Amino acid sequence: MQLTAPLDMHLHLRDGEMLENIAKSSACTFSGAIIMPNLVPPVSTKEDVIAYKQRIMAAVGEENFTPYMTIFFKPSYDKAFLESIKDEITAIKLYPAGITTNSEGGVSGFDVEELRPALTAMSQLNIPLCVHGETNGFVMDREAEFVSIYERLATAFPKLKIIMEHITTKESVAVLDRFENLYATITLHHLLITLDDVAGGMLKPHLFCKPIAKRPEDRSALLKVALEAHPKVMFGSDSAPHPRHAKEACGCAAGVFTAPIALQVLAELFAKENASIENLQAFISGNAQSIYAVTPPNKTVILEKKPFTVPSDYNGVVPMFADEEIAYSIKKTRITNDCK
Amino acid sequence: MQLTAPLDMHLHLRDGEMLENIAKSSACTFSGAIIMPNLVPPVSTKEDVIAYKQRIMAAVGEENFTPYMTIFFKPSYDKAFLESIKDEITAIKLYPAGITTNSEGGVSGFDVEELRPALTAMSQLNIPLCVHGETNGFVMDREAEFVSIYERLATAFPKLKIIMEHITTKESVAVLDRFENLYATITLHHLLITLDDVAGGMLKPHLFCKPIAKRPEDRSALLKVALEAHPKVMFGSDSAPHPRHAKEACGCAAGVFTAPIALQVLAELFAKENASIENLQAFISGNAQSIYAVTPPNKTVILEKKPFTVPSDYNGVVPMFADEEIAYSIKKTRITNDCK
Repeated sequence: MQLTAPLDMHLHLRDGEMLENIAKSSACTFSGAIIMPNLVPPVSTKEDVIAYKQRIMAAVGEENFTPYMTIFFKPSYDKAFLESIKDEITAIKLYPAGITTNSEGGVSGFDVEELRPALTAMSQLNIPLCVHGETNGFVMDREAEFVSIYERLATAFPKLKIIMEHITTKESVAVLDRFENLYATITLHHLLITLDDVAGGMLKPHLFCKPIAKRPEDRSALLKVALEAHPKVMFGSDSAPHPRHAKEACGCAAGVFTAPIALQVLAELFAKENASIENLQAFISGNAQSIYAVTPPNKTVILEKKPFTVPSDYNGVVPMFADEEIAYSIKKTRITNDCK
Repeated sequence: MQLTAPLDMHLHLRDGEMLENIAKSSACTFSGAIIMPNLVPPVSTKEDVIAYKQRIMAAVGEENFTPYMTIFFKPSYDKAFLESIKDEITAIKLYPAGITTNSEGGVSGFDVEELRPALTAMSQLNIPLCVHGETNGFVMDREAEFVSIYERLATAFPKLKIIMEHITTKESVAVLDRFENLYATITLHHLLITLDDVAGGMLKPHLFCKPIAKRPEDRSALLKVALEAHPKVMFGSDSAPHPRHAKEACGCAAGVFTAPIALQVLAELFAKENASIENLQAFISGNAQSIYAVTPPNKTVILEKKPFTVPSDYNGVVPMFADEEIAYSIKKTRITNDCK
């Protein structure tokens, strides 16, 4: 099975030692990725984003990989600033304040008039807005409650491309087709698990993420649009490494690390569900190229149906399916024969 | 504030070293408790229950405390067996197979005819049936789905006292008044937390329990019947100790350890909600005495509104509110001045 130019449209690469430890897990098999800006402090200036990109490229080494950079949305961004930075970034990421890891400086309330200058400028400059769409409500309702905010933004800024990030509910799937300018990313883990997997048997910290995995009918709705390669839906892993101690602690951090096994497990999932390789190709690359108008570096990844035992950790980060056997392996990429 | 003969109508005391470590946490402040039988192997014979009671009494030491013993329900129990054991037990506990800690030998399917001989005999001998009411469905639906089984059992065995254990949903509260022979226990933690507290921020393994904490409207329904001391509702802590390593592991065990702080936190909760001390007294003792027709040993517990910092652990078991300050303290009991 051959995939061309896989893209991960939602990726956390962190910084410093963690960046160095995990960058190749993505760069080895993906041609590019949207890089989330929620560092401490968040990436929000031209200098920040240029410097962060350089650190990423250093960590990626010889792999042929494009980090599509983002900055952390602030309502204060004006058109002059956005014009000055637009060549350095592919999108801007909006976080509601305090909703996830390192999002303390995010947006509180979603007053359209307060957001109008920045979002109008983004719209005019054709910079997509990526959104972590959760309210501060009850954990199972946060995303569904946010749908009305998506509707408000999509209506107020009809030319703004709005990406609903890591959607987890049937409500988010349903709103996709109601607004021309709404798009979505879907993670690997939300295609596979529900809250049952996190907390239905033993509690599984390594499957704990935000948004939390939802109900079986939500997973089914996500799976349907992914498998049919709905043209407004893209793969975005939300692969989010934390050191083992932060996941296995009394208060466990949110995030699932899937980068090194995402393509293999997607291949297995699409095969199991009898979805075509063309649809997988569209889901992991073609749709994103159209939506974002990007042309990623050429990369061919050959997968084979051969069991692979996922390592216990990658430089101290526990991946999804750690110590378990998955059905597909990376045979080779055009760049390297040794993607572990 | 003075409470008389507090009863914990759902308690896990475990066995061996754990029993020795935690028995006094309950015996110090409670007059008695329904002791759950899910040891490995489960308590299910007369010899088992007599021996287990002796081990409990040894661990309790000089405290004035009555363990109300139970055995693990099996459909094969016949009237002769039940007659032979009825003086040793206060109730029989039914677990659906595989639903919680050490419940592998429980009931699969709830065929009334299969259960009829045992439940008819229990009914005739006036032995209450305590039920862990969860299906194998989606984690947030398991208890609500079980309501139809409660209805079936309550209808088929109208003279059998059925205790819906550790109820967590508005559906269970609602069914209480529809059948004369249904009763319920409610834990401390389900009066205080929702799934938000377990998985809404960081993941909190020490608040992970079965049934899992549900939605805000469920907690409100539980709180209402507890605070009004609904006569069919009793306090049952479901205090369930696990060693720290089993709670802070990759696959964390279910159970919240509340025995040592239950009365203090209930006092705080009832005060905060402006519920009367009479209602608290009924919730933690009077209702249970009526429902079970038991007369517990005399014990007076005096609580005072004085901050108490909950220890990090009790002999290696992390309690709810570990390292936090709670508003009420045990001043003294008639037996001892030193309940920690």
